[in-house]
Amino acid sequence: MSAQKQVFIAIIGAGGVGKCFLGQLAALAARRPAVRLSLCYITTSKKAVYSPDYAEINIAGATAALAASETKPLALPALVDYLAVAPSKVVLVDNTSSQDVADAYPQFLSRGISIVTPNKKAFTGSFKLWQDIFNSAAASGAKVYHEASCGAGLPLISTVNDLVDTGDEITKIEGIFSGTLSFLFNSFAPANPAPGVAAGKWSAEVTTAKELGYTEPDPRDDLNGMDVARKLTILARLSGIPVESPTSFPVESLIPAELESASSGDEYLEKLPQYDDQMEKVKAAAEKEGKVVRYVGSVDVTTKTLKVGLQTFDKSHPFAALKGSDNIFSLYTKRYGSNPLIIQGAGAGGEVTAMGVTGDLIKVLNQIA
Amino acid sequence: MSAQKQVFIAIIGAGGVGKCFLGQLAALAARRPAVRLSLCYITTSKKAVYSPDYAEINIAGATAALAASETKPLALPALVDYLAVAPSKVVLVDNTSSQDVADAYPQFLSRGISIVTPNKKAFTGSFKLWQDIFNSAAASGAKVYHEASCGAGLPLISTVNDLVDTGDEITKIEGIFSGTLSFLFNSFAPANPAPGVAAGKWSAEVTTAKELGYTEPDPRDDLNGMDVARKLTILARLSGIPVESPTSFPVESLIPAELESASSGDEYLEKLPQYDDQMEKVKAAAEKEGKVVRYVGSVDVTTKTLKVGLQTFDKSHPFAALKGSDNIFSLYTKRYGSNPLIIQGAGAGGEVTAMGVTGDLIKVLNQIA
Repeated sequence: MSAQKQVFIAIIGAGGVGKCFLGQLAALAARRPAVRLSLCYITTSKKAVYSPDYAEINIAGATAALAASETKPLALPALVDYLAVAPSKVVLVDNTSSQDVADAYPQFLSRGISIVTPNKKAFTGSFKLWQDIFNSAAASGAKVYHEASCGAGLPLISTVNDLVDTGDEITKIEGIFSGTLSFLFNSFAPANPAPGVAAGKWSAEVTTAKELGYTEPDPRDDLNGMDVARKLTILARLSGIPVESPTSFPVESLIPAELESASSGDEYLEKLPQYDDQMEKVKAAAEKEGKVVRYVGSVDVTTKTLKVGLQTFDKSHPFAALKGSDNIFSLYTKRYGSNPLIIQGAGAGGEVTAMGVTGDLIKVLNQIA
Repeated sequence: MSAQKQVFIAIIGAGGVGKCFLGQLAALAARRPAVRLSLCYITTSKKAVYSPDYAEINIAGATAALAASETKPLALPALVDYLAVAPSKVVLVDNTSSQDVADAYPQFLSRGISIVTPNKKAFTGSFKLWQDIFNSAAASGAKVYHEASCGAGLPLISTVNDLVDTGDEITKIEGIFSGTLSFLFNSFAPANPAPGVAAGKWSAEVTTAKELGYTEPDPRDDLNGMDVARKLTILARLSGIPVESPTSFPVESLIPAELESASSGDEYLEKLPQYDDQMEKVKAAAEKEGKVVRYVGSVDVTTKTLKVGLQTFDKSHPFAALKGSDNIFSLYTKRYGSNPLIIQGAGAGGEVTAMGVTGDLIKVLNQIA
């Protein structure tokens, strides 16, 4: 019998996704006896748990150990050094949305440390950072996977990569990438309204979405479309377009111009009813054509055209029939022809996001262990 | 610079999928200089090309070489021996639908030969064969991937495996698994009929589908539901249910009892109009409720219940809105809750089936090379 292989795991971030990931990691470690998963570092922005000799941290007790810790996190360059000389291979799990951590990926990867992450920042920063990340990985052989950076646990990034890697040509990707905006439009302009249930005014739907926890604390952070633009940037880059940044193509903001400068989300919500006519008009114009309005991101790979904004769809279109806060992604390719490959489901949430990260970790372990 | 790694590729089958796969393999070999993909064996049921010293066969010229060959294929035990002592790792690509080849998988795998295949027979035969296959692979470390055994290139098997491997619990899978039956019902009972276009009688739609090449030579081979039952068997087994065989659960045949024994597909088609009332009644009953009828496979994992047959759906249901001959798969899991993860698109065709095989090959190469 061969000796059990060991892989060290280092985790940055122990918030919503981080806690779900720890649960999944504990279960994985219990199920996967062929590889010993040794947690050697875990940190929040304020506290860390680790030891100079890479002693294994109990995964189930990691949250409590963090709470009790009085140790400060290592600075990123020191963390790179610490992990690079570990006595076995290392996977860094970045469960933050930190640009600083993302900016350090090339350093981790070039020292042979693999990375799995839901952090969009690494893949939506400058195109140079994108290139540095994948070039560093290719040079060292370290792996970098980021399924949960777009669509959470949905098999989206892996499918786009598989299409490209097997030689298909992606011609267009379009979809509803924001759970928040999906929920808002499914409520505001339902394709199949429940009998006797009238949709509310736009401002009322935004308020409800906020109350249900579907929006950021300031809903404008969803309604400016930048989250959709970031996801579209990732998909377009994977499809072969060197998009410079999420601000380098047209993004339609749903925030009335007069409320861009409102001092707070509360002030915005308070004044929003004054502008309900704008969205009512958009909705009525679509209805007149027998259609519904949805907030869509799309990339035409052939013409290298990206755009994010409102579009109208027949009520029988899959985008119109979406439910709740689900995401939907339509991948048009040369092989699939006129009917796209469609992936649909929850695109946000702690457990499904952590699942994307855990799935990536398994893929990395299959290759390095 | 390290020496280029080499992996030997052996291919059984050079029909529709096999030819598409050869094209994708040639492109992959050209793009992937880190691993030298050496085709060392290729065979149809009648002829083979190979040499005792594993000399590399030109991939682009393989079809012509096969046509010109006067060499008989190796018997399967001899092929196992030949590949097991190759001077580098080997991946067997089984592009047949042969039960004999499938039955030999445990022998290949236990000798360290990895397998990628669209061949359903290996995964829908006895449950003992299923266990032997995966146990042999686990014992030797050889890999076995079969994405294209269900849904062709759609990321279905990989997603079901990822859900299970990351610790989610699949509660139910349902879908429209047959491109033929999808096409038939989308034409016969459209949810959104084109204005002025009346759907034909059932027999007329079956005849049209046959003429367009959407059915097997004898359409009864699609209409008996066994293709759907085989795919459901694979999905149920991956979800953890030890299904004994595709005939061990209820499968509703769409062939009128009186035509089961018709001597040919032609005789069946000739007599089918006499039985059009049966399907008209089913369709009318659904329409009376504002619904449409579809042919669905489903597995309730919680109650271990599998069934294949007709069901009705609201016109806004994703199954009702399907187009052309697309497949759709709804995966209900604990993490995804009431809204399933949905994967939809072409579930048959040479290039997309070969894509599933090529994608699997890349996954195996990432692990063994």
